[in-house]
Amino acid sequence: MSKSTSQPDMLALLSPRRVAVLGASDNPIKAGGRPIAYMRRHGFGGEIYPVNPARAQVQGIASYASLADLPQAPEVVVISLAGSEVEQAVAQCIEVGARGAVIYSSGFAELGEEGLRAQQALVTQARAAGLHLFGPNTQGVANFQQGAILNFSTMINECPPQDGPIAIVSQSGAGAAIVYGGLRRQGLGVRYLVATGNEADITVAQTVRGLMADEELRLVLMYAESLHDADVLAEAAALSARRDVPILAVKAGRTQAGQQTASSHTGAMASEDALSDAFLRQHNIVRLRDFDELVSYAQLFERRERPAGRKVAAISNSGATCVLAADAVEQNGLALAAFEPGQAQALRAVLPPYVAARNPIDMTTALLGQPAIYGAVLDTVAQSRAADSIFVGFPIGGEGYDMGYFAGQTAQFAAAAGVPVAVCAVQDWVATEFRQRGVPVFRSEFDAVRGLALLSDYAQRRGAVPVSCSQRGGVPQAAAAWNEPDSLAALARAGLPVMRHRVCRQRADIEAVFAELAAPLVLKGVSAAVTHKSDHGLVRLHVSDPAQGQAAWDDYAATLAGLGADFGGLLVAEQSRADFELAIGAHWDAAFGPVVMVGRGGVLVEAYQDMQFLVAPFTAAQARQAIGRLQVARGFAATRGLQAVDIDALAAMLVQLGDWFAGQAGRIVSVDANPVLVTRGAAPVLVDAVVIPAQEQ
Amino acid sequence: MSKSTSQPDMLALLSPRRVAVLGASDNPIKAGGRPIAYMRRHGFGGEIYPVNPARAQVQGIASYASLADLPQAPEVVVISLAGSEVEQAVAQCIEVGARGAVIYSSGFAELGEEGLRAQQALVTQARAAGLHLFGPNTQGVANFQQGAILNFSTMINECPPQDGPIAIVSQSGAGAAIVYGGLRRQGLGVRYLVATGNEADITVAQTVRGLMADEELRLVLMYAESLHDADVLAEAAALSARRDVPILAVKAGRTQAGQQTASSHTGAMASEDALSDAFLRQHNIVRLRDFDELVSYAQLFERRERPAGRKVAAISNSGATCVLAADAVEQNGLALAAFEPGQAQALRAVLPPYVAARNPIDMTTALLGQPAIYGAVLDTVAQSRAADSIFVGFPIGGEGYDMGYFAGQTAQFAAAAGVPVAVCAVQDWVATEFRQRGVPVFRSEFDAVRGLALLSDYAQRRGAVPVSCSQRGGVPQAAAAWNEPDSLAALARAGLPVMRHRVCRQRADIEAVFAELAAPLVLKGVSAAVTHKSDHGLVRLHVSDPAQGQAAWDDYAATLAGLGADFGGLLVAEQSRADFELAIGAHWDAAFGPVVMVGRGGVLVEAYQDMQFLVAPFTAAQARQAIGRLQVARGFAATRGLQAVDIDALAAMLVQLGDWFAGQAGRIVSVDANPVLVTRGAAPVLVDAVVIPAQEQ
Repeated sequence: MSKSTSQPDMLALLSPRRVAVLGASDNPIKAGGRPIAYMRRHGFGGEIYPVNPARAQVQGIASYASLADLPQAPEVVVISLAGSEVEQAVAQCIEVGARGAVIYSSGFAELGEEGLRAQQALVTQARAAGLHLFGPNTQGVANFQQGAILNFSTMINECPPQDGPIAIVSQSGAGAAIVYGGLRRQGLGVRYLVATGNEADITVAQTVRGLMADEELRLVLMYAESLHDADVLAEAAALSARRDVPILAVKAGRTQAGQQTASSHTGAMASEDALSDAFLRQHNIVRLRDFDELVSYAQLFERRERPAGRKVAAISNSGATCVLAADAVEQNGLALAAFEPGQAQALRAVLPPYVAARNPIDMTTALLGQPAIYGAVLDTVAQSRAADSIFVGFPIGGEGYDMGYFAGQTAQFAAAAGVPVAVCAVQDWVATEFRQRGVPVFRSEFDAVRGLALLSDYAQRRGAVPVSCSQRGGVPQAAAAWNEPDSLAALARAGLPVMRHRVCRQRADIEAVFAELAAPLVLKGVSAAVTHKSDHGLVRLHVSDPAQGQAAWDDYAATLAGLGADFGGLLVAEQSRADFELAIGAHWDAAFGPVVMVGRGGVLVEAYQDMQFLVAPFTAAQARQAIGRLQVARGFAATRGLQAVDIDALAAMLVQLGDWFAGQAGRIVSVDANPVLVTRGAAPVLVDAVVIPAQEQ
Repeated sequence: MSKSTSQPDMLALLSPRRVAVLGASDNPIKAGGRPIAYMRRHGFGGEIYPVNPARAQVQGIASYASLADLPQAPEVVVISLAGSEVEQAVAQCIEVGARGAVIYSSGFAELGEEGLRAQQALVTQARAAGLHLFGPNTQGVANFQQGAILNFSTMINECPPQDGPIAIVSQSGAGAAIVYGGLRRQGLGVRYLVATGNEADITVAQTVRGLMADEELRLVLMYAESLHDADVLAEAAALSARRDVPILAVKAGRTQAGQQTASSHTGAMASEDALSDAFLRQHNIVRLRDFDELVSYAQLFERRERPAGRKVAAISNSGATCVLAADAVEQNGLALAAFEPGQAQALRAVLPPYVAARNPIDMTTALLGQPAIYGAVLDTVAQSRAADSIFVGFPIGGEGYDMGYFAGQTAQFAAAAGVPVAVCAVQDWVATEFRQRGVPVFRSEFDAVRGLALLSDYAQRRGAVPVSCSQRGGVPQAAAAWNEPDSLAALARAGLPVMRHRVCRQRADIEAVFAELAAPLVLKGVSAAVTHKSDHGLVRLHVSDPAQGQAAWDDYAATLAGLGADFGGLLVAEQSRADFELAIGAHWDAAFGPVVMVGRGGVLVEAYQDMQFLVAPFTAAQARQAIGRLQVARGFAATRGLQAVDIDALAAMLVQLGDWFAGQAGRIVSVDANPVLVTRGAAPVLVDAVVIPAQEQ
């Protein structure tokens, strides 16, 4: 899973004019036969060179004994051979100057260490020569616009290709085929189908970034089990945002992060999944759950309409669907558009008297006799500009309903008004009427409304996608943690708010320090070796008398000596009360680089797991949104005469931490600050912190 | 929406031998023509009497001028007339001694007050005579076993009926038809299809309860927009639990509770939806989101297999599906079964060497050459008894996969092992292979696994469904709230733990009371008129000196005089520290009767909305589960040397409150206790409460 050094020209790789197939089969349903059959059947205009030393012809076209015998050099070579023959095949590809190879063969990293070594040897050989590899262990790639189908998926047989503005990019070949089949069954056209397999060389992220160069592309659907080249995906996301080509992604495998991220407390709590969530959200990549969702929401995101806001109008011929749609609007964080008096009056003018001019609009049986009412209602809603998107429910269309007419009206409306529409229809024939006219159809009110919500989120966040990203690189090795005063001092220098405190390095300092600070005071023993100080009696609260300070000094010294730990003096801090205790932190993640955490703090930080992550750099707005997603933040608003928590100050603190930590470029491995005291109407303040520096290089 | 006084014999009502149709139409696609056409086409063995004074024949059979002219009295009459003619038609039904009427006609409660009055007049007339009504404004009812189709849904035309062990009961006619169509397209048989419409007389709950008498019934699917006869539904649920006939329900319309429940603070926070959730969960009615979910999960619940626990084995021919299934298992609160060494060895014996004997079992391409491996794996998993249910994923079945064989093996396994199986298949032809053999098929790994989770919940909770329920009745009218000492005294008498306190009725009592209690003390002004005492300076903390008590007395008296409120003395309580502040409460709900609330308390109770409801009576186990669903409860476990919160004591307190409150049978309108101090390793204790009694009758 190492990273490519050179950027492949993805469009060129997927548009070869000359394709050779090593292991070409005369049988069109074998892996080595399928691409030849598919290319011939689906209009490939270039040259196909079967390579099979045992045959003069393959599927009726001339076959060759080796790559060296071809009349012209192939641009891309399909390798459909036993794993043991692949190394030599790659060498031959290099010899004839091929640009790319698609390696179907299995028997590599998926089998363990030995296979991984063989795979790495392939990559070393290929990269040195500028040859790009898909696979090994891939079902292959396809460009259906060109008919360049270097792919053995049976789904291409089951669902014949049709060009369209969608790319499917998946680590899993089955995943690619499932999504392809799902889209084709809906009648959606697909241009690219890429399975990256073991990703020895080319990854999902590289493919997505490369495909963004196709100016006709309107949508990318991707599946990945790991996001190991986040830098590249971030570049793809920046292109996606600039060109308004949404990326819908399934990131599966919600396992705990590996040991690399576990060097700090923050890191240990950052599951790979939570970080993926944060990364994808910040880059406006729409995260979905599974293939079924990719297929369902593609039809809506493939279109050009974008909601300007979160207000929905709902129209149905079923009262139950109106109720369920209203529920779904609320559950998905959208709002039902409210018609102002003038708008309601305009609606009443086109509705029969027994249909109320409110939202959702329950048409009851009005459309049975007068189908034209439907278009009039759509137009009136559009003219009102009250709604940013439209839900339409036709859960029942029987005799008397001209569904083709309604579907046509809907398609015409969406195109003219530029307002997205999502339809709920459960009868296949009704769904087909809408789909044939390019109108997105969902199986339930909830799915349709959720689609509109996802599209609203996407449109809203598109402007906030970062155009550059920080260097991620490897995770630095942790050195010994700094003690508390040193950690706090470093964070104070970084511009973070730290509570007023002094450190008594000598017992004799105590009196002067007590005179300088305002009681009540907190006394802590300084020791880099002890993390949970209160567990060892190294914290005293409510202190005001220097004699208590001296007693604490003596006790702490004895305790730490007993623990065999260093004693770095007495930290004396002004004690303050807080309305909330938060925790903040930062760590260097193997996949995502610098990551900042904010969460509910105190001793129950692990118990509550109420935390959010941000991949640095991030904006204050993103930080505010992350804070807003915390459960504890529901208590932050002003209420019952209490002031609000200053969320802007908290967000600024997170941005400051992220910028500073990223700027350290790996010199700091992690920061954990817990608690951060948050008081209504006051600035937040750090009262404890552990900073872990990196080992000297 | 008033309640029926007599219980209809639902099976008899839905099995009429003689059906008359008022407004019978010769046109088989009009509402008055459809039931006649449907009954004749689908094997109704009884007599059909069209009534239409304008015609001698309707659809080729003899028509009559009026009900009085029929050769025999009809058992059930379909009324397909204008709304204005219904009253007279009902009178005729009574005259000829019909048992039931199905009123298609609209123009009643759905149009407002006047329509509601007309509807109530129908019910009054009918009940006096023992006539039961479906509707008005209903699409009708059907018993497909008998061909008794008193229903004008076009869906019966689109999807021809087939008898089966499923009942569909829905307020909404469209909803009934959507679910019916969805089941029939899957090949599932349906016996009853009942739309209750305006529910002037017969409700969804009454229908469900009545249908439980059919011993062949295996599943009920219901849709309701309100649960206004919770008593009847509770009876239905008790029958469902006894007979193991699951009820899957959509309860739509997630609006705020009406004014009736808003008489107390607890009541105001109890949304109808949260109470519906609590009620349905306690009665083991499986709550689903929409029609699509009803249709999806019916196939699994219709079968007889029940999981004995929450452990799942997953098998697929796709690695991606294995990963997504593992994610779904965790997300749905199930666990992947772990194979012990002996079990893994048994698996290895039937698997090819390159397939790992772990869970999920990624078969890779093993089944392509050797399909028999599949059955052997299923058998081995069954023999291991490691799994309580099985997920099977065949997301891709192309050439080389004999899906009919795999489907047959799966069906055979489920029947023999009694272990539920859920399959994920996205290609229609693959899904059909499994469906035809009665194996439940889902579109995604998530949906399949969620089905298994819902079935596990259902099986687990079945034993806990209450067999009797409390009297719900109307909501009592609130009288003036009791003041704090009186409220606390009432709750103490009810057996709830109340903090140690005394009330100084006279200023002169203060000294003696201070001597009796342990400082620090809390001083509060007693006044029934002031709810948020701290907002008015009527609470002082950390008091130890009686002189402070006397000063407080004077200040409070002046403050309350200024507010024009009563001053009932000084409440002096021992002050205690708590790890958590909860709130508990009880109120009398219009639909559900006595309801208990537990939640995160303190001043931010509204901000966090972290609360759970229980419909009384409930068990300690149900109370513990409700507490466990609170977000705040994540901090209750023992951690970092801290003791655990005594959840049993909290649960006992809730049970005590519920039993006492229900036992008051409406004499108490509501109880609000906030905060309840919860300290690790100690008993919880109420420190503030407001009890609102009912007005004297």
